[in-house]
This record gives sequence, structure tokens and C-alpha cells, in this order.
Amino acid sequence: MEISSMVDNMTGLTHDRPVQTSSFCQQFPSVDAAGNYDVVNNVVIPTPGAPDPRAQNSLRQSWEMNYQEAAIYLQEGENNDKFFTHPRSAHALSAYLFAHNHLFYVMELLTAVLLMLLSLSEAPAVPFLRLDVYIHATLELLALALVAFELGMKLRWLGFHTFIKHKRTMVKTCVLFLQFIEAIVVLVRQTSHLRVTRALRPIFLVDCRYCGAVRRNLRQIFQSLPPFIDILLLLLFFMVIFAILGFCLFSANPADPYFSTLENSIVSLFVLLTTANFPDVMMPAYSKNRWSCIFFIVYLSIELYFIMNLLLAVVFDTFNGVEKMKFKSLLLHKRSAIEHAFQLLLSRQRPDGVSLKQFDGLMRFYRPRMTARDRFLTFKALTYSDTTMLSLQDFYKFYEVIGLKWKARRSGEYWFDDLPRTAFLIFKGMNLLVKSKAFQYAMYLVVAINGIWILVETNMVNDGVSWTHVVPLSYIIFLTIYGVEVLLKITGLGPMTYFSSGWNLFDFSVTVFAFLGLIALAFDMEPFYFIVVLRPLQLLRLFKIKQRYRNVLDTMFELFPRMASLGLTLIIFYYSFAIVGMEFFAEVVYPNCCKNSTVADSYRQINVTIGNRTVLEEGYYYLNNFNNILSSFVTLFELTVVNNWYITMEGLTSETTHWTRLYFMTFYIVTMVVMTIIVAFILDAFVFRMNYSRKNREPLDDPEDEKGIVFETEVSQTEALQTLDLYKHTLGVTNLSSLQDMCVALERSGHSSLVFQGRRSRTKSDLSMKMYEEEIQEWYEEYSRTNLQPDETFHRELDSPEANASNSIN
Amino acid sequence: MEISSMVDNMTGLTHDRPVQTSSFCQQFPSVDAAGNYDVVNNVVIPTPGAPDPRAQNSLRQSWEMNYQEAAIYLQEGENNDKFFTHPRSAHALSAYLFAHNHLFYVMELLTAVLLMLLSLSEAPAVPFLRLDVYIHATLELLALALVAFELGMKLRWLGFHTFIKHKRTMVKTCVLFLQFIEAIVVLVRQTSHLRVTRALRPIFLVDCRYCGAVRRNLRQIFQSLPPFIDILLLLLFFMVIFAILGFCLFSANPADPYFSTLENSIVSLFVLLTTANFPDVMMPAYSKNRWSCIFFIVYLSIELYFIMNLLLAVVFDTFNGVEKMKFKSLLLHKRSAIEHAFQLLLSRQRPDGVSLKQFDGLMRFYRPRMTARDRFLTFKALTYSDTTMLSLQDFYKFYEVIGLKWKARRSGEYWFDDLPRTAFLIFKGMNLLVKSKAFQYAMYLVVAINGIWILVETNMVNDGVSWTHVVPLSYIIFLTIYGVEVLLKITGLGPMTYFSSGWNLFDFSVTVFAFLGLIALAFDMEPFYFIVVLRPLQLLRLFKIKQRYRNVLDTMFELFPRMASLGLTLIIFYYSFAIVGMEFFAEVVYPNCCKNSTVADSYRQINVTIGNRTVLEEGYYYLNNFNNILSSFVTLFELTVVNNWYITMEGLTSETTHWTRLYFMTFYIVTMVVMTIIVAFILDAFVFRMNYSRKNREPLDDPEDEKGIVFETEVSQTEALQTLDLYKHTLGVTNLSSLQDMCVALERSGHSSLVFQGRRSRTKSDLSMKMYEEEIQEWYEEYSRTNLQPDETFHRELDSPEANASNSIN
Repeated sequence: MEISSMVDNMTGLTHDRPVQTSSFCQQFPSVDAAGNYDVVNNVVIPTPGAPDPRAQNSLRQSWEMNYQEAAIYLQEGENNDKFFTHPRSAHALSAYLFAHNHLFYVMELLTAVLLMLLSLSEAPAVPFLRLDVYIHATLELLALALVAFELGMKLRWLGFHTFIKHKRTMVKTCVLFLQFIEAIVVLVRQTSHLRVTRALRPIFLVDCRYCGAVRRNLRQIFQSLPPFIDILLLLLFFMVIFAILGFCLFSANPADPYFSTLENSIVSLFVLLTTANFPDVMMPAYSKNRWSCIFFIVYLSIELYFIMNLLLAVVFDTFNGVEKMKFKSLLLHKRSAIEHAFQLLLSRQRPDGVSLKQFDGLMRFYRPRMTARDRFLTFKALTYSDTTMLSLQDFYKFYEVIGLKWKARRSGEYWFDDLPRTAFLIFKGMNLLVKSKAFQYAMYLVVAINGIWILVETNMVNDGVSWTHVVPLSYIIFLTIYGVEVLLKITGLGPMTYFSSGWNLFDFSVTVFAFLGLIALAFDMEPFYFIVVLRPLQLLRLFKIKQRYRNVLDTMFELFPRMASLGLTLIIFYYSFAIVGMEFFAEVVYPNCCKNSTVADSYRQINVTIGNRTVLEEGYYYLNNFNNILSSFVTLFELTVVNNWYITMEGLTSETTHWTRLYFMTFYIVTMVVMTIIVAFILDAFVFRMNYSRKNREPLDDPEDEKGIVFETEVSQTEALQTLDLYKHTLGVTNLSSLQDMCVALERSGHSSLVFQGRRSRTKSDLSMKMYEEEIQEWYEEYSRTNLQPDETFHRELDSPEANASNSIN
Repeated sequence: MEISSMVDNMTGLTHDRPVQTSSFCQQFPSVDAAGNYDVVNNVVIPTPGAPDPRAQNSLRQSWEMNYQEAAIYLQEGENNDKFFTHPRSAHALSAYLFAHNHLFYVMELLTAVLLMLLSLSEAPAVPFLRLDVYIHATLELLALALVAFELGMKLRWLGFHTFIKHKRTMVKTCVLFLQFIEAIVVLVRQTSHLRVTRALRPIFLVDCRYCGAVRRNLRQIFQSLPPFIDILLLLLFFMVIFAILGFCLFSANPADPYFSTLENSIVSLFVLLTTANFPDVMMPAYSKNRWSCIFFIVYLSIELYFIMNLLLAVVFDTFNGVEKMKFKSLLLHKRSAIEHAFQLLLSRQRPDGVSLKQFDGLMRFYRPRMTARDRFLTFKALTYSDTTMLSLQDFYKFYEVIGLKWKARRSGEYWFDDLPRTAFLIFKGMNLLVKSKAFQYAMYLVVAINGIWILVETNMVNDGVSWTHVVPLSYIIFLTIYGVEVLLKITGLGPMTYFSSGWNLFDFSVTVFAFLGLIALAFDMEPFYFIVVLRPLQLLRLFKIKQRYRNVLDTMFELFPRMASLGLTLIIFYYSFAIVGMEFFAEVVYPNCCKNSTVADSYRQINVTIGNRTVLEEGYYYLNNFNNILSSFVTLFELTVVNNWYITMEGLTSETTHWTRLYFMTFYIVTMVVMTIIVAFILDAFVFRMNYSRKNREPLDDPEDEKGIVFETEVSQTEALQTLDLYKHTLGVTNLSSLQDMCVALERSGHSSLVFQGRRSRTKSDLSMKMYEEEIQEWYEEYSRTNLQPDETFHRELDSPEANASNSIN
């Protein structure tokens, strides 16, 4: 191909009109839903050299609109927003743009967080955060008004019909309305009433753009519910049968409080399900008749060891399926978004490809802060088959390349290549040293000795006071060794290489912490002593030695975002339960309460005289209360861990009513669901990872190997200059420093071309793509069979003779 | 094919010699290991009509030997015995046969069980089973002598070299030797010394033929160990880090006994790992500083919620792989056994197929109690491609058809087809009734009402005494309804059909139990009251309504054998730990012991005066002791359930030494391994089942559908008669009643042929066969590529001209 035609292709003719016009575009009638093409938009190639400035201008506007809509489609694809919420008019567009930027998202998030945090200050409040009623009620009203404003923007963007059809938004609106009224009531009465509805506040948080992961988790939990509930019923059914049996067998024993009535019997067996009262519940019966243990062994074997595991199996199985389906629908949604965007970028003259000009226009909307050079390189990375035009097939890879960070591949191996000879040799030596096995193992040895040293030292001190006041010599010695190691590694590998490895980052931060701890010790800053105790974390480095640990820890890091979102989901459940708990159980338990319950001991607080000292013997359980939201969270965590949870339950029950148990049992079942899903998630993720590395025979054993996605593209000098030229003159982009830098770098390097590398870390989606390779092809085929795009219909119409005939009017 | 030639084919010519001779056969030199064929065994077809009786006799003996060896090969394939233990001479054969029959197996099992049961009577004995030292020591010596005799037989059968190479046998021999000496020492001293080695007794049980499943489980546990230990180290490592941290943070608090020393700190966190001491361990620190809960939350999140689940994930993953590999090796082993057997059944004249005669000969050794008819039908079921000869391809299906139960397919639909018209109509009506949906749902309704009734009734009685002494009217009414239902169903469906469904069997037995309960009530037989309380089990029938429950319960039944073997494995571990526990901790705890431990409350036994009554307030934990093997088992079960296990541990530790904790911690880790494997097994089995039913779109929703493997084969009248003739005259089989019955049935039916159905229930192996269909083909190919059989080599030699030349000598 000649250079001139190539440039021509790359730029796209400036007079070329888009094939399909954006729906935001008001100048031209838009394409209607059926994909029928309007004849107004026909191809007219103005005679070159005599462009009509007015037509040129409107044409440019039309393109800009197209770029924007394409960018919106791609965003929708990325965020998994359904297309029925796609803005349909210029009117909607402005609202959409207003509601879709990080400033708005942050506002949304902050409002929701503020609303949730209010419960810290509302009665029953955390003591040092207590606010007067009129202050927190006003704050709440303000936050709710903000939420209302956000909903207003959404209404404007979605239009009334879509708005009321969007379930989540409708629920949010109703909750908002309710909260508004209640807040006003509180403000008027100047006192809080029983506001259980505060438990609904997390809905505002869940609806935030940034909480998409939490929404997905919740959806997954609800999808796993039906089979879960089935098995739960089986569980409860056996429980009831055994309760009747237990009542019949053991109620004759007056020393046995656990089975004295049918209700007690059911509660005891429910608690036994969690093992929390285990040998105790058996003991009275066991002491009377040794064979009665069979009842309990059978019950636990069936319920705990069989049905509970069945629960996990069923959830795990559902989870597996749901994960795959979710991946599939996301993938197909993205594909569809790409197709929509592609149609908008096509020009009349070259209807099967997108030129750099159009792509650049799109990217300016899609990633406003991307440099011109990166836009150009991304375009180059996408065009595999043809170097000047993007086909739809190329464009399908859009989401794979969009996150790449571009960098010129270093011509030399080391960062010190350009230094003078002597320095080079020194650094080279260091490099070889820190890369050598001997050095690594020496460091492992040091870490191991350090670990043993810490253990011995701690064991010898054994009163826990003296160690904080002097700086032990060993501390300084080991810290020096670690410091030297860090410095050697940074200089030997170069800071960039050093900090690109997660393990090195870990080393670095632990060493820095240890150093801070030393300073804290030396200057006797007591509140920072806790840093010192983080020293043993150094020992974690030992786990690099073994393949499996690296695998585990890598997977852990990969899982971290999902784990965090699951944790957040759990916190949302906690929040709702904490509010309900506070409304009903605040200030209910106190030292020496619950005297007429079976768990009075755990609440007892008495002074005992031992010898000549008076010691306070405490039951402590009064601390597990719902007196404020922080205490409630701790109490709920204790309930999650399950052990001894019945003490809290029985204590509160004895001070309130029997129905209190319902709260605790519901909480137990809810956390059981969430916890089972967390377990299923961890299981699934690990088994997936292991299958993946087995299937792909991934080496995974080079600890320094940066596992990531790498794309490479070569740019020749002439190409670079032409692109610069094109950008300067044709596209009218102003900020070209990145491209200019590239040209300068090319010139300076002395080579005729330079290879650029785009890197990004690997995501779960990349792994899934590889795992489901074959299935994905099937999905695509199925998708293109069942889902013949309106755009494709349109295409065929365009190609057909009738369409061509009708095109000749304008 | 003509009938005569068919019969000829079916029978196999009587003069035909085997291609390969059995290694037991002493008359003919045998085939040596390299598969070189001995020329003595060459084909000589005696002139018909003038058979040489001596030659005939030796030929028959030779065939018999071949049948026997083939049967042994097939047994080895079935039992997964390695071929290197295959008997190699007539000498070994007799020992092999002696050691391989059910009588011997039962003896083996009984000896092992006796040895294990001895611990009931040895000090510390269960009170009412106590035996004098000389009695139990003599019994032990006797049992050990029996074991020695069994080992002697094995030595004779395996030969010395194989014997010492067989690891399990060698371990058994060593243990036997040790036990022998110890038993003699006990008998001489007339008192038991510290006999921890008794913990090795389960080895005799594990080595039993009938305990193959336990052996497999143990192997699987050991295979899962390496990854398990890796993650366990990670777990313990974090534990130690946190222990140091906790010691540093909390040891300054004098009210906190949990972190007072480093050892306490480690023990507390180990117990916290099991959650057994949860909120308590946090409370002293929490009451001082509310933020200290973060330490515990982080610890539990990392250890309990992350690493523990990781443990499960790793074991589950290994388990998955191991299950598949096990299935593969079993499959290939069976295939190889079939090939070995097939070679032994081939005759010189027709070297590619096995005739009925040879097959029948084989079956007489392989399944001595199978009837002649079933042998014939099995042969027919195997021969798909050619109706008269078994090719190797046909023979590969041997294990699939061997377990079939054969029955003539009923010509009519109902069992009452042959009854007179009126009776037929009545029964037909009953049949339609019990099969109708309305009847089923009416019964569900009755069961549901019964359930509610029982609940209400139990709740109303609420003192647990009166219900036992009068027969409530409702009991009689419901029992009558169930009784009528059972009778209707039996008569309507016919007893055979009725009892072939597991659900019906369940209904039947519950109803019978209820009836027995009624009798017990009516005649006031107090010890049988427990039967009455089994009534609510009727409610289980409600779970038939829903598809998922049927799936779950069916899977449960399928899993039952494996679950039982896993339970047995657990019991074996329990046994060893119980012995060690009894040796060290017998009679250590008693009421009001452990006064200077933190758990003294749980052992306290005091009289408390409440009002004017004196009540014994009991701590009960002294009941969790190691005073005899039954108590030890209960104690160990409590430790398995984990809750409050530290009370038992601390109690014993305070009365003995600190090293006691090691016993408990080891036990915890061992049960953790076994329990994790059980969970992994349940997970795996269910996920496998669900995948299977998804993959095969199995309907699974007809509750009356008997899920099983069915083979059909059609027998014509002439064929039956010929076979009878053949058996009578040629094979000399005496017990032909089954074949004669078949002929009679054929004649009476009036049809020219009769279809026989062979049925067996479906096993996991069948499911696996279907699941891994594609992989199995690959395995077979790989197997036949890498594992060119000596027999095949031999075959090719036979076909080559040199072999033919050398064959002409005899």
C-alpha cells in the first residue's frame, strides 16, 4: 500500500459521513428502532478543495455525537448497565453525563455513607459521638435531599417510563420517601421513635455506582437461596423430629433443663446445630444413662456432618453455575456494546472498518485523560489483520487492550546501561548478587534465625513489659541486614523493577515499618509500640520458598477485591441487624442481670476475696450488648463465630420476651447463608485457579515473573511522524506532547522503529476466557444466531440493490 | 449360520486345547514369563469317534486349571489385587484358594474384631465386661496365633520374596511379633504394663479382605496429606505470629489469663482456631480497651474464615484428582485382568473367541453358586456382535454384566393377570387407585396432619410422662390409615413391585415399627417405648413431593456405603487415640478435681440448698474421661465436635502435665484431616451427581422409577432346548433345574421366545463411566499403546511363520 493511501486510510476522509447517526444528534433524523435507514443521511462526497464550511461543521458535530454515544455504549458494556437505560435523546444525554462522572459517584457514595454513619450519633449513640436530635435529624434530611436530587437526575435521564420499570430505583424511591417522613417526624417531635426502618439505609449504599460488586454478591446470594432453603427445611425438619424425640426421652429427668418443654427442646437442638452447647446439653441425660449419648451422636452426625455439608455442596454447585452464567452474560453484553459502538463509528465511504480518526474521536470521550500517543498505540494494538483499519473482529478485543499501560520496550536489559563503565560494573555485580540463589537463601536463613530469635526472646521475657523500653541489640542487627538487602535490591534491580513485584513491596513496607518501630522505641513513643510487634511478619517471606504457598498467596491477592466486596456485603447485613438489635435490645443487659436465666454466671460481676486481695470476678458477657452500633457490630461478629452465642441469646431472652430468640435464629441463618457463600466462593476460586494452572501448564514457579497481559506493537519512525502530522493538522488535537516525545525518543534511539509494550495485570475475566475457551465460541455462535443485530439487518439492506437504488435520491 | 455349526460353536469342540496353559497346570510345561509358547501344547485334533481317554482326561484337567486361573484373574481385577501377588504354582494355588473364600475372610475379620474388642475387658475395663488378666491375655494370644496362621497361609501363597516385598503384610508381621511378646509378658507378669502398642491393633482390621474400603480411605487420606500439611503450616505460622503479638499486647493485663505467658498465648489461639473459647478469650482485653477486638476479628478472619477454608479447598481439589486417578487405575486394572483371563480361555482352534463351554467353565469357578441358566444368560448378554462367540471386545464388558439378577420379563403388566376376571378387576382397581396422584396426595395430607397432630399433642402434654401410659386414639387412627395404605399398595402393586422400591420399604418398616410401638404401649412393655417416639419419622415421606429432596435422599443412599466406610475409618482413629488416652489418663478426672485450673467450675459437684430443697449442682465434665474404652469414645466424639473441648483438655492438663495438650492438639488435627476429607467427599459426591444429571439430562423425577442397569436378552425355544442338551451331555453339569425351568416356562408361555431381563442397581462406577466417557477412550488408547501385552506378543508370534513351523512337532 502506498504511503499516501495509507495516511488517507488512517485518517479517514474528512468529508466522510457516519453510516449511522447518534440518537443525540438533532440535525439529522435518526435511525429508527427497526434499523431503517433515513435517506437524508446519504453519501455525498463534496468535491475536494471546495468544502462547504457549514456542511463541514455540522458533519463534525454529527461525528462528535457519534463518538460520544459510542463511548457511552462502551461504558455501559464495561459497567454491565442494561441498554434499556441508554439515553435516548440530547435531553437525556445531558442528565446522563451529569450522573456519570466520578464527582457524582463520589457524592452518591458519600451521601450513602453519611446516612449509615448517622447511626453512630443517633440514640443509642456511641458516647463520644452523640449528637443532639435536631443536629442528626437535619443532617439526615440534608443527605436524603441529596439522594432525592440524584434520583431526580436519574428520572431525567431514564425518562418516566423506564424509571418506574427499573425495580431497584423504585425500591430506593419508596425507601427514600419513608425515611423522609420519618426524619421529619423525628425533627418535629425532637425525639427518636422506634425506627426499625433505619435498617433499610444500606439500600442507598448498595445502589451506588461504586458498589456494583456488592450488588452482584447480593444477587448471587438471592440466586443461591432457593436450593439453600430447600435443604434448610430438611435440616429444620429433622430438628423438629429430634426435638419431639428428645422431649419424649429426656423430659422425665428433672435435672435436665434442656428438654423440659417442647420449646426448650427445639431451642436446645437448634443451638446444638451450631454445636455451641455441645457436651453440656448431653451431660444431664448422659449422667443418668450412658446410652443416651447415642441420641446426640446420631443427631449431630445427621444434621451437622451430613446435612450442613449438603448445604455447602448445594450452594457450591449453584455458585459454580451462577458464576459461569454471569461470566457469559457479561461477555455477551460487552460484545453487544462493542457492536453498537462499532456501528456508530463506521463511515459511509468505508463501511467495514474504523479508521484511526474515528477511534481517536471515540477515545477522547471514553478515556478523556489518555494521551494521544496511547490512543494511537491502542489503535495499533487492536489492528492485527489490517494495519490501517479496525474491523469488527479486531474491535471485539477492545476491552482487552483498553486497560494497557504503554511503555517503550527498553533496548537494554538494566536501568544502569547508560552509566559509565565503572558504575555499570558495580551495579551489574549487585544485580547478579541479588538475583543469585545464594543471596536469596541467605536471606531466608536470616529471616528464619530472626523468627527463632523473636520466639526465644519473647519466651524469655515473659512478663511483657520490659521489652518495650529498651531497644534490643538483635532488633538493630536484623533491621540493618534487612535495610541493606532492600538497598542492594533497589540499586541492583532498579527501583522500577523492584517495586513492580508485590513481594518486594511487601518486604519494603515491613522493613519500613520495622524502622518506624525502632524510632518509636528509641524516642519512647508509646502509642506506636504496636508497630514493633509487626516484626514477625518478616517471617512471611519464608513462604516464598515453596511453590504452593506462592500459588496460595497469589490467589489470595487476586481474590482480595472479591473478598472485600463480600466483607462489605456482610457488613451491610450486620448494619441492618445492628439497627434492629439496637431498637429492641439497647441497654437491656448490664452486670449481674439475667439472674433467672440459665446463663446468669456469665453476667455475674462480684468481688471475690482471695487471701488478702479483693479481685473482681467478672462474667463479662454484659459487654456483648446492643448499646451502640459499634458494640452491636462486635456482638454480631461474636454471633457469627457462633461459639457461646446462646449465652447472649439467653441473657437477652431472660430480660425481654421469648420472641427475642427469633432475632438470633434469623441472624444465625442469614449469616449461615452468607458464610456458606463465602466458603463456596473461596472453594470455587481456588479450585478454578488450580484447574487453570493444571490446564494451561502454567509454570508459575518463577517468583519474579510478572504475571500479566502484555501486548506489543512496533512503531516505525515514518509512521510516528505521519501520525504526529495527522494529529496536528487534521484532527486538531492540541495536546500532542506525548506523541512528540515518542518521535524524539525514536530519533534518539537511532533505530528505525521502536517496540512499545502495553501491560496490565491479569484479571479473573482473563482466566475465565482461557478456561472456557471452547464454550465461549459456542456462546458467540449461539448469540449471533439468536440475536441477529438490527445493525446487521441494516447492513444487508444497504448491500441489497433496492437499498442502493433508494440511496440515490439525496 | 446353521444350527449344527452354531451348537458346535457354542459348545466349543471337546478336543480343542487351550491356547495358553495355566501356570498351575503341572502336566504341561507352562508358558514362561516372556510369553514364549511351549511346543508341547500344540494343536492335535483327535480323529472324532476315537478319543483317547487318557488324553481327553488330561485335556479336561488342563481346561479346568485354565478356568480356575482365569477366575482368579477376574477376582483379582474385581478386588484390585495387584498381579504380582498372583499365585504362580499349584503349590501357591492351594494356599491361595484356602485364603480366598468367605469362611477365611470371616475368620480374619472376627479375629481382628476380637482383638479390638479385648480392650473392653482389659484394664481399664468397662465395669460389667471386666475379665481377669489371664483370661484376656489367653484370648489375645489365641487371636494372635490365628493371625499368625493367616500370615503363614499368605506366605505360602505369595512365596517368601513377594511376601517381604509386600509392605502392608510386613508391617502386620512386625506388629504381630510385638503384640505376641507383649501378650506373653502380660500373661507372665499377670498384670498389664503401659501398653500403648495396643493402639496398633486396628492394623489387623484394616488388613482384612472385607475392609478394602477402609484401606482405600486411608490411602486417600495419606494422599491428601502433603498439601494439607502445607496449609496447616501456614495456619500454625500465623498462629505463632499472632501469639507473639497477643502476648505483647495483652500480657500486661493481670485480669487476662489467656495471654499471660507465651505458652498460654499459643494455646489460647490454638483453641480460638476452633472457636471453642471465643468470646471469653477476648473479654478481658475487650473490657479494658474496646479496640482490642480488632486483634481477634483479624485473627479469626484470616485463620478461621480464610485459611481453614483454603484447607478445605486444597483437600477438595486433591480429592477430585485422586478420585479420578483411582477410577482410572481400577478401570485399567480390570481391563488387564479381563485380558489375562481371556487369553486363558482361548482355544487353539478358535483363537479369537470364547465359546459358551469355556465361559461356563470359568463361571463355575468365578461364581460357584450361579445357576446354569444365569451363566447361559450372562453369556448371551455379553455376546453382542456375534451370538455364539465372545470376542475380547465383548469380554471387556464382563464386570458390567456379572452382577445382573436375571428374570424373565413378565408377559403381562400385573401380578394378578392370571387371576379370574372378578378378582382381576378388583385388583386392577386397587392398582389404579394406589397409582393415582389423588391417592398419593391424600396420603401426603394424612402424613402432614399426623405431623401437626404429634406436634400439638406433644406440646400439650408437656410433662413427658402421661403419653406413655395410655394409647392415644389418634395413634390408632393414623396407624390404621397407614396400615390400610400398606395393604392396598401391596395388593395393588404386588409384593415384588412394592418391595423393590426403597421408599415403599421405608413406609413399610415405619408402619411396622409403629405397630410394634402400639403393642408395646398396649401391653405396657416399658423398654420398647422408644419405638413409639419413632412415629414422627413418617413425616419423612413428605420429602418425596419435591424433586430436589428425592435427589438428595437418593444420593444419600448411594453414598451410604462410602459414608459407612469413612465412619469406620474414623472409628479406627478413635480406637488408637482411645487406647493412648486410657493408658495415660484413666481415672485422672473425678468430681471436684482440677481445682487449680481455669475450668474448675465444670468439674465442681456441690449440694446447693435452694429454698428447702437440696439440689446437686453438677459440673458433669468429670464424665468426659478415659476410664474405659466406651467413655473414651464418647469423649473423643465430643472432642471431634470441638465445642468446649478445651475444658476436657485443661482439666486433664491440670491433673497431669503440660504435654497432655499435645495429645489433644494432635487429635484435633487428625480429626480435622478426616473431617475435611469427609466434607470434601460429600461435596465431591454431590457435585458429581448434580453434574451427572445435568450432563445426561436424566429425568430423575419419576419417584417410582427404579434407577438401575438393565440388560435384555432374548432366548428362543430351540436355543433353550439345545443349551439344555448341551449342558446335559457335553458339559456334564449336574444341577440343571434352572435351565429345565426355563424350558418349561418357554413352553408354557406359548411364545417362540422369551425375553430375560438382567438388573442391578447403579453404582458410582457406572456414573463415572458415563461422566468420563471421552477420557476413558483416551485412557484405553494410552494403555494399549504403552502396555503392549505379553499375550499380544505371543499372538503375533503365533501368527508368524516361524511360530507355525515350530508348532508342528507335537
